[in-house]
Amino acid sequence: MGETNQITETYGRTVYQLAGHGKRNFAVLMEAFQAVDDSFEGDRYGTGKVIEDFQDKMAKLTGKEAAVFFPSGTMAQQIALRIWCDEKRLKKVAYHPLSHLEIHEQDGLKELHGIHPVLLADKDRVIELEDITGMEEEVACVLLELPQREIGGQLPSFETLVKISEYCRDKGIRLHLDGARLLEILPYYEKTAAEVCVLFDSVYISVYKGIGGITGAVLAGTEEFMAESKVWKRRHGGDLFSLYPYIVTADYYYEQRAGKMGEYYEAAKELAELFNAGEGVSTVPETPVSNMFHLYFSKSKEQMIAILAEVHEETGVGVVHYLNEVDDQTSSYEMTLGDLYSAIPKERVTQAIQLLNEKMQRAK
Amino acid sequence: MGETNQITETYGRTVYQLAGHGKRNFAVLMEAFQAVDDSFEGDRYGTGKVIEDFQDKMAKLTGKEAAVFFPSGTMAQQIALRIWCDEKRLKKVAYHPLSHLEIHEQDGLKELHGIHPVLLADKDRVIELEDITGMEEEVACVLLELPQREIGGQLPSFETLVKISEYCRDKGIRLHLDGARLLEILPYYEKTAAEVCVLFDSVYISVYKGIGGITGAVLAGTEEFMAESKVWKRRHGGDLFSLYPYIVTADYYYEQRAGKMGEYYEAAKELAELFNAGEGVSTVPETPVSNMFHLYFSKSKEQMIAILAEVHEETGVGVVHYLNEVDDQTSSYEMTLGDLYSAIPKERVTQAIQLLNEKMQRAK
Repeated sequence: MGETNQITETYGRTVYQLAGHGKRNFAVLMEAFQAVDDSFEGDRYGTGKVIEDFQDKMAKLTGKEAAVFFPSGTMAQQIALRIWCDEKRLKKVAYHPLSHLEIHEQDGLKELHGIHPVLLADKDRVIELEDITGMEEEVACVLLELPQREIGGQLPSFETLVKISEYCRDKGIRLHLDGARLLEILPYYEKTAAEVCVLFDSVYISVYKGIGGITGAVLAGTEEFMAESKVWKRRHGGDLFSLYPYIVTADYYYEQRAGKMGEYYEAAKELAELFNAGEGVSTVPETPVSNMFHLYFSKSKEQMIAILAEVHEETGVGVVHYLNEVDDQTSSYEMTLGDLYSAIPKERVTQAIQLLNEKMQRAK
Repeated sequence: MGETNQITETYGRTVYQLAGHGKRNFAVLMEAFQAVDDSFEGDRYGTGKVIEDFQDKMAKLTGKEAAVFFPSGTMAQQIALRIWCDEKRLKKVAYHPLSHLEIHEQDGLKELHGIHPVLLADKDRVIELEDITGMEEEVACVLLELPQREIGGQLPSFETLVKISEYCRDKGIRLHLDGARLLEILPYYEKTAAEVCVLFDSVYISVYKGIGGITGAVLAGTEEFMAESKVWKRRHGGDLFSLYPYIVTADYYYEQRAGKMGEYYEAAKELAELFNAGEGVSTVPETPVSNMFHLYFSKSKEQMIAILAEVHEETGVGVVHYLNEVDDQTSSYEMTLGDLYSAIPKERVTQAIQLLNEKMQRAK
């Protein structure tokens, strides 16, 4: 941690940062609330103009009959899967081995809902049609995460999605979209959100990733499905007295950033190319398909902390704000492009990456 | 609803209101955030100064080793009961028939945790020692709600609490406090929060009732218990990316109002006496033991809507903002005293209640 703090500290002193939308401090909240007028009244237990209007907007965006705002994607997705399992009276679903549900939720799906997963595909690649047609066990629902975050944000082809959707409908298997980063993949697919969502029975979107709100999630589907989800939302303790601090900010930053996903995507491709041009640094995927990629350094975390701290200090450009240890010769970082990248003069970016390369050569 | 709106509308036009702290609009949030300085950084997944400081403050308040901030009491209490049930490997708990868990949570405790309740006492009175000593079934935990909200906010004597606590400890039964309104009962008991909480193994407090924050709850107990609760918080989807909008407001209004619970309690007693002096209006309990009571009108909801709307219009004092239909000759309202009562000139209060009495006599 002491060494990671050297990264965090030097990053904190940089003038420019490659990733993100900026600090997640209370200015994020205050800016959104400046736009709210005096007649504003908060939501109460899921009712009220502020929550209903935003839910309607998200239903339209996804092309679904209805949408419900949830405090978290963890809650929204467990509930979606529970409803589909209850429908089929079969407590089994299928998803990727690195799904959020499998590795970040303390087994909530199993412990609270008694639902067991069938893991599809190898860890290091996305789910393909054959993984689903080849399943030996029957499941109530297949969950696809687009893009697959834990492998740098990878995507199957759109044609594969269409085929998976058709197959699942044929077989009576519900298809759920973990679209935490749904908006972020639309420029690559060259599709609208509704054109992607029509392939799925239910869809979850995060409001604090690409959109950059404070917290929260949206679940969308049929009227009947959403009505049922509200019962489960209350059971989970997610039907909060007021969700408006999250909704006002979600709506404000959605309006600001939904149209900028193409810009973030182009930035990710440009930046990945710059990194890949040097030795000892590579990205996964090599060519990004959204605003994110994983950055791999062919040196230990300890070595890279020293090198990157120097790059930060000497160039004023923040490259990474933490580092993961992959093994004793490899370290990594998750890069997600947002508003900040376009504010950096291009020569400062190339200068920083050039210096990084030089230092890595010298450290050999 | 049309008729209830007549109440809501006329109430909305009054100059003074008997109940509450004021409108729950975005000024509640903005006022609290004015006090936040520029160096403020949000919490992230349960860590960070803003959440840790407030949790420490709540641990000290309750005299417990640790406290955790939850998005809701529904979530916090289900989790508390689950931990106690797992400890005893017995999925049974005991609580009042009108407990929040029994009537407001869509059976989350049963549906998510498989825990079944034993209902103690009759609906219209609080749980006494004999209800617990006379239980025929073994349970892992007894939950006491202080005050018992659905019967107007009633309390057992403090001596009874001490005896219940001793009995449960003797028998190896965990005792959990639904202290949604814990601060509100301290003036009646003439005890500190810690002096009440020491009788319980785990304690939940709401931050948006007497305190008047936006949303949120605190669960307190031993270090070990709280560590386990964090795992369940994540499983429930309650380990939100950022909880700071709720925590900043909770802390701000806690500091403002924790010391005013005695004032609210005195106001409740004074107001209940004024109501009880007239015919056709009565309070439960007759003498409040906290800042709340239930108001019963011996006329139908329809009749009372007409009468109360006139009182609102003629006096400028808001008496009730909705009405419940009890039966075709009785209607009711839950009165909770807060900041607004002390701002009303005393003669305006008596004038409004006098006019209410006159109109009720005339309507006979």
